[in-house]
This record gives sequence, C-alpha cells and structure tokens, in this order.
Amino acid sequence: MAQYTLYYWPLPFRGQFVRAVLAHVGAIWEEAGTGEVAGERAADPKVQLVPHMGPPVLIDHGAKAHLSQMPAILAYLGEKHGLLPEDPVLRAMSHKIVADANDVLYEMTRYNGAQAWTAAAWKEFQPRLGRWMEIFEETGRRHGLTARAGSMLGTEAPGLADLVAAQLWGTMTAKFAPLRPLLDRHAPAIAALSDRIAALPAQVELRKRSDEEYGDEWCGGQIEASLRAVLKAPA
Amino acid sequence: MAQYTLYYWPLPFRGQFVRAVLAHVGAIWEEAGTGEVAGERAADPKVQLVPHMGPPVLIDHGAKAHLSQMPAILAYLGEKHGLLPEDPVLRAMSHKIVADANDVLYEMTRYNGAQAWTAAAWKEFQPRLGRWMEIFEETGRRHGLTARAGSMLGTEAPGLADLVAAQLWGTMTAKFAPLRPLLDRHAPAIAALSDRIAALPAQVELRKRSDEEYGDEWCGGQIEASLRAVLKAPA
Repeated sequence: MAQYTLYYWPLPFRGQFVRAVLAHVGAIWEEAGTGEVAGERAADPKVQLVPHMGPPVLIDHGAKAHLSQMPAILAYLGEKHGLLPEDPVLRAMSHKIVADANDVLYEMTRYNGAQAWTAAAWKEFQPRLGRWMEIFEETGRRHGLTARAGSMLGTEAPGLADLVAAQLWGTMTAKFAPLRPLLDRHAPAIAALSDRIAALPAQVELRKRSDEEYGDEWCGGQIEASLRAVLKAPA
Repeated sequence: MAQYTLYYWPLPFRGQFVRAVLAHVGAIWEEAGTGEVAGERAADPKVQLVPHMGPPVLIDHGAKAHLSQMPAILAYLGEKHGLLPEDPVLRAMSHKIVADANDVLYEMTRYNGAQAWTAAAWKEFQPRLGRWMEIFEETGRRHGLTARAGSMLGTEAPGLADLVAAQLWGTMTAKFAPLRPLLDRHAPAIAALSDRIAALPAQVELRKRSDEEYGDEWCGGQIEASLRAVLKAPA
C-alpha cells in the first residue's frame, strides 16, 4: 500500500524534486497517470484534491493530506522526515534554496514556456545562469561543505537543501551535458555535491527508473526543444 | 535601534509582504536606501549579505541572520513570531499560499517584466487570473472562514496565510481598481478578508506610509506601465 500518491507529468523537472525526497526517505509512492494529472489540473478548484494551478500535487494517505506547490510539498516532507535543520536561520536558508531552485526552473523555461529560447536570448542569459550557480556555491561555502554542527549544504547527512541543490544542478547538467562545464567552473563544490547525492543507492535507482520512463526529457514540450536547439548551436 | 533591516525597492510588490508581516508583529525595522539595495543586488555573491539574485533581503540584527527570497523570509518570520499553524498540514498549506502568491506576482508581471502586456495577452490572461482568485477562495473555504481549531485562512487571529492573501489581493486591487470587481466575483470571501486585514491599525499605518512614499506604484517600471495601459483600454 502506497504511503503517497504523486500527481505530476511523466517528466523530471519540478516533480523530480518530490520524487528525489520520497526516494531518499524510502517512502513507497504511486504515480498518478497522465490523464489523472491532466484531469485534476483542469478541474474546477471546488472539486480539485487541493485547489491548484498546476502539478505537482502530493497525497499523504496516512495524514489524509493533499498538497500542491513544489516548495510547500518539500517543506512538508522535509519537516515530516527530519530533513530540515533545527536552527531557525538554517531552516529558512533551506527554504531559500528551494525558492532559488524554483526560480532557476522558471528562468530555464522562460516562465514555464511563455517564450521560446532564441540564440540571442540564450546568450544574454548565460551570465545570469552562471550567477545562479555562484549563488548556490557561495551559500554552500558559508553554510556547509564542512560537516560541522550548524551547517546545511554538503554535510555528512544529506538534508533537504542538499537533495534540492543536487536535483536542480545534477539533473539539469545530466540532461543538458553542454551545461556541465559551466557548473564545474562556477560551482565546483555544488557539482561535486550533486555527484555525491546522485551516487546514493536510492537516487541511482530513481534515476534509472526515470530515465527508462522519461528518456532524455527534462521539462518537455516546445520550450525543451528550443533549449536543445540553442545548446546545439555553435557558441 | 531597529530589530530588522529590509532591502527592497521603494515599491510595494514582493517587499510589501515582508513589511506587512513586520508591521503586524510590531517589529521596528529600517529600510535600506535604493542605492544600497541596488549595490547589494549587483555585488559578487561572495560579498553579498546573503547570496541572492534580487531583493527582498532581510537582516535580523538580533539573530545576526541575513535572508533572501520572499517565501523564505516569510517562513522565518512566520515561525519566529508564531504566525504559522501548529498542524503540519496547515503549516504546509501556509507555505502553499505563499508560493501561490509568488506565482501570481510572476504572472501579473509576465515574469518580472520579461515581456510587456499587450491587449491580446491581457485578454488571454483574464480567465487564469480569475482561476487564481478561485484557488484562494476555495482554499479559504476548506481551511478557514470558520474560526475553528485546525483552520487557517480567515480565522479570528490573522496568521501568515491571511496576511499574505490580503497583501496579494488587497494591495493589487487597491492599486488597480478595475480588478476589484473581478476579485469580488471570483473570491468574495478573500475580498472580505483582505478588507478586514487592511483595516487593522498596523496595516492602515503601513499603507498610509507606503502610499506617501511609493504613490500609486505597485511593481513599477515598464511592466507596470503596460499593465496600466491594458487596464485603461475598453474591454
């Protein structure tokens, strides 16, 4: 019997952050079918499992809880499964990393595909993407990368911040290999953290299963096609 | 001596959510000057108060803490000042409301001004804006609007969810009066909640001060100009 049911598209992107946490804590979950996800999304808010604009939606069957919004789902799972630091400032910094990750997802997809990537737009975005990487790197440098008490990112026992940072940068650079050198240059410690998290058995298993089901896709659709096109073009 | 220093533009928008919470808990805070905000934003992440892409940034002087990302700052203040429900699901629903509000801000500004509003784009967005309002209304209907234990939105003692919902819809419809009938139609209980919160003495005082300093501006810039233009055009 599944503890959780996840409603998300058959894609990594935002849903994979939830899957990575569920896999990490050893939860048993089911994935709703694409038709169910689409049906929930299109339904009147009055009859939705939880009023929401788009997936992910997570059901916690034991708590009879229905949640939407990736940051809220991660906050809930992080609290329930002990993945958030005790210190209130570091807890808030964990939420900050989730919010930063969510912003990077918006920007990489030009707000969920509101515009397609062009060579010119991509070129203009490069320094900003590098700066996002540096923001993660510097956050890790200040708050982690040394397994001391009161640290948060890159510590011995992975917490929500680690799983989220690794999911963002590790999955993105795995799906878009030309971006890996950029990550290595701007955020070498985050790149190494992403590799360490990705090598954990539960994450290896999740990635294997996801790759089989979703192939090379990341965010999917026309926006992914336009991103692949600009990445293939000579710099 | 100020307990907090807020770095934000001289505008409501995302910063006003932080101000509304600070005002509600009776905190004493200073606002950094526009030059300081711009300087922090442009600085190398290595020397920023907290590595960030954009304001708001909040300093908690007592805790010697530096935070960025509106949702993370609100989670921190909500926890510190007892504005979050005890129940873990309702806590997560409070974070969901913050994430929804943040998404509405992105969409109202076409991702922080990435594109200008046109009459066609605004017309296409209308049903979606109404749906966002319905999502808030239905969330309030399920979890609040009846001051019982285990409720969250529209209850006797305003919590983070109330302050955020009121700030989003109340300030938006105060600055853009043509949107108020839409809110009254799609989310009458949220409209009433926004009015009740706005009438609290601390919020009245904040709004008076903000109106004096920021005038009619909401998000500012060309995106606000294009929004005002489409709202003035005959439907």
